[in-house]
Amino acid sequence: MLLERDLIQSVGFRNVHENGEITGFQFRVRMPSYRGMAASLIDGIGVRIPGLVDVAPDVPRWTLQGKTYTLAELWDSDGVRWPLEDAAIVTVPLPGGLPDGIHELSIDLRLRMSYIPQEHQPSRYQVTKHVTLAPEAKGAPFKYGVSLYSFMGDYGTNLDLETALRSIADLGATGVEILGEGHVTNYPDPPQEWVDAWFRLLDQYGLEPTNYGSWIDTRLHSSGEHGRDMTVDEGAAALQRDLRLAKRLGFRFVRPKIGVVSGDLIPHPIWTDVVEASLPLAAELDVIICPEIHSPTPIKHEVVDDYIALIRRTGTKHFGLLLDTGIFQDRPIPLAPGELPGRRPAFLDGIGVDPADVFDIIEHVVFIQAKFHDIDDSLEDQQIPWEPVLRALKDAGYTGYLSSEYEGDRIPWRSVEQVRRQHSLMRQVADAL
Amino acid sequence: MLLERDLIQSVGFRNVHENGEITGFQFRVRMPSYRGMAASLIDGIGVRIPGLVDVAPDVPRWTLQGKTYTLAELWDSDGVRWPLEDAAIVTVPLPGGLPDGIHELSIDLRLRMSYIPQEHQPSRYQVTKHVTLAPEAKGAPFKYGVSLYSFMGDYGTNLDLETALRSIADLGATGVEILGEGHVTNYPDPPQEWVDAWFRLLDQYGLEPTNYGSWIDTRLHSSGEHGRDMTVDEGAAALQRDLRLAKRLGFRFVRPKIGVVSGDLIPHPIWTDVVEASLPLAAELDVIICPEIHSPTPIKHEVVDDYIALIRRTGTKHFGLLLDTGIFQDRPIPLAPGELPGRRPAFLDGIGVDPADVFDIIEHVVFIQAKFHDIDDSLEDQQIPWEPVLRALKDAGYTGYLSSEYEGDRIPWRSVEQVRRQHSLMRQVADAL
Repeated sequence: MLLERDLIQSVGFRNVHENGEITGFQFRVRMPSYRGMAASLIDGIGVRIPGLVDVAPDVPRWTLQGKTYTLAELWDSDGVRWPLEDAAIVTVPLPGGLPDGIHELSIDLRLRMSYIPQEHQPSRYQVTKHVTLAPEAKGAPFKYGVSLYSFMGDYGTNLDLETALRSIADLGATGVEILGEGHVTNYPDPPQEWVDAWFRLLDQYGLEPTNYGSWIDTRLHSSGEHGRDMTVDEGAAALQRDLRLAKRLGFRFVRPKIGVVSGDLIPHPIWTDVVEASLPLAAELDVIICPEIHSPTPIKHEVVDDYIALIRRTGTKHFGLLLDTGIFQDRPIPLAPGELPGRRPAFLDGIGVDPADVFDIIEHVVFIQAKFHDIDDSLEDQQIPWEPVLRALKDAGYTGYLSSEYEGDRIPWRSVEQVRRQHSLMRQVADAL
Repeated sequence: MLLERDLIQSVGFRNVHENGEITGFQFRVRMPSYRGMAASLIDGIGVRIPGLVDVAPDVPRWTLQGKTYTLAELWDSDGVRWPLEDAAIVTVPLPGGLPDGIHELSIDLRLRMSYIPQEHQPSRYQVTKHVTLAPEAKGAPFKYGVSLYSFMGDYGTNLDLETALRSIADLGATGVEILGEGHVTNYPDPPQEWVDAWFRLLDQYGLEPTNYGSWIDTRLHSSGEHGRDMTVDEGAAALQRDLRLAKRLGFRFVRPKIGVVSGDLIPHPIWTDVVEASLPLAAELDVIICPEIHSPTPIKHEVVDDYIALIRRTGTKHFGLLLDTGIFQDRPIPLAPGELPGRRPAFLDGIGVDPADVFDIIEHVVFIQAKFHDIDDSLEDQQIPWEPVLRALKDAGYTGYLSSEYEGDRIPWRSVEQVRRQHSLMRQVADAL
């Protein structure tokens, strides 16, 4: 398990429920020193949220190694420690707790260092961070999950599997989505001990596997002297390999990302034969194959018509549509450094699909990836209009998962806080519909 | 195990030795996509180092999952993969290899994405990084190690124990220094399985435990109504707890950081009784207690005189001096943002101890922490004058460890590359003496 780099951790910021009432809030703090230390060396932590909270350093309680103490109790303690590798949990009394959303949280942490001259003591760590409360809003009628895709760049460099799963569970989310080729050790043949650990973690964090991302790499052997496209048999073998692995890991949906043959993402023509050849296995495993409707492809498009035609032609219950909310983007993604206006693909400005279009296809939509790029400190999404999108989905009767796909700046650790913002935003919007 | 965030990894950049000759160099690259992929989707990697290397994308060889391939072999391969969690090793032929030091390494990596329109393919990743070659210089007569203190901030957020040890071994270093309260799980009582894993990792990476940092927290109970200083018995118990744990983990030296009672770091008066009471145990365990000579305390100072007096008075062979090279700092550490000239402790400008002063104490020096803050892209240390320092140590007959203590900017991952620079610099300076 790993900690976030900032002293104030996003994960763990939540109201405290006791006997049916909200009695305060809590958050986690990383040890600022280069060592862990005896808890009697803590000299308190002041906590401030403008307009809501302003408490002196001796007020918050401390949870260390699973037990909770007042500051006076820490001073008298022996053997209680704040280890370098564990965040301390700081609990602030506040009847009724904090409202949902982003809070500007400031701390004034004091630690005593015996090896620093007394005149420079205690050492003080004063930092402020915008952090998002684990949402209280129910967010019905939808279910909430997160794709590990959200953590691209962080995953494997500053996030491991358990740390990622804990961050998802901390939001009250129940679903986890993975990419087979991204998150399964020794894909496509994970050791059984990895699979056992996977299920143990799901159980520990109360998460269920939702969608499994796979690829049909039609250009797998297109380079070199004997370059050629993938055959139907090869494509079916790839898809079926992933259907089996997805089932082994408990997933109900498999999204194959199919190679394309045009600028508007027409899938390679092998796709129908590949899918049809795999439907008996999908039925046997009870897994649903669901290609995504993804920008720049809108809902009203021949690609989508072809997917629906396959369902009608075969009568299958094991093929459906996955909707990526990036199609509803109605404001541009800001230009990257060095990027010139008009010199990048137009769809980055948003293809602005009308949310009402979902009514035409909703009966076939089995899963939704809640794509987003940037939610600011005021909890406003800069690209995706969640109010009309969620209203349309609710009115159309969708009650499945909204599974976060953060696709914004890959600044280290940013994804963790951005996903929190999206869940807070989507649940509040849904409650207000 | 974790990867560095940059695509080009610092760890793993080295010359390739084959049959007694240097045939080229190699480095590790993190997968830039959000998934791992079949190796037949790699379309090569161009590599450039100004004035030294400029090779086309089909020239380097690829080592994936332990086997090495040409690009043409990858194109024909089935089942070979570049996993998301593993860096690929890229080997470039270059008879005689690269010279020691920092190189401006540029890559032009090409990957085929079947799901992106052909007109935008292959996906290209062009990045440049200043990376330091694992040194060829011998660096005699010294031994080389690294303290995990160097990785403060990274450790536990983007570095785990094994990743840290691998980065040390990659430099050809043989010694590892830890902080008991920082790097031992469940300090002071690590589970036996953690201890077993510690020795397994040391063996795997060819490292020996050198110095173990401990604290005598004289202000452990100085806060609160009944605030008081630590007693001799409490101090001795603390030191002896660490002597035992250090021995259990294979360390030969223990550096107690003793609480101070003055602005020039005079240790708390309990220190002599605490140490004398612990000398029999140190002898029994054959561990040497060695407080540090640390800026702002110079070599010619009553604190050092008192340490040496204790050795003479007791005749012990289990007490010595640890020298921190921060005392030789002769140029200032740059002002931090918001810091004003003259408003910070003067020692941050460097106390500039004359390296020749080591002759007076060298017979008692058992270990050296090679403190440093910043080595620039030209391999020049901005604060510590290594040439006179290493010359004095060599002339004085020191043949022990130089154990890196990086203490500069805590920008994520920066410490890993800075430690590489210091080892390259110190070894080259030593070879040129």
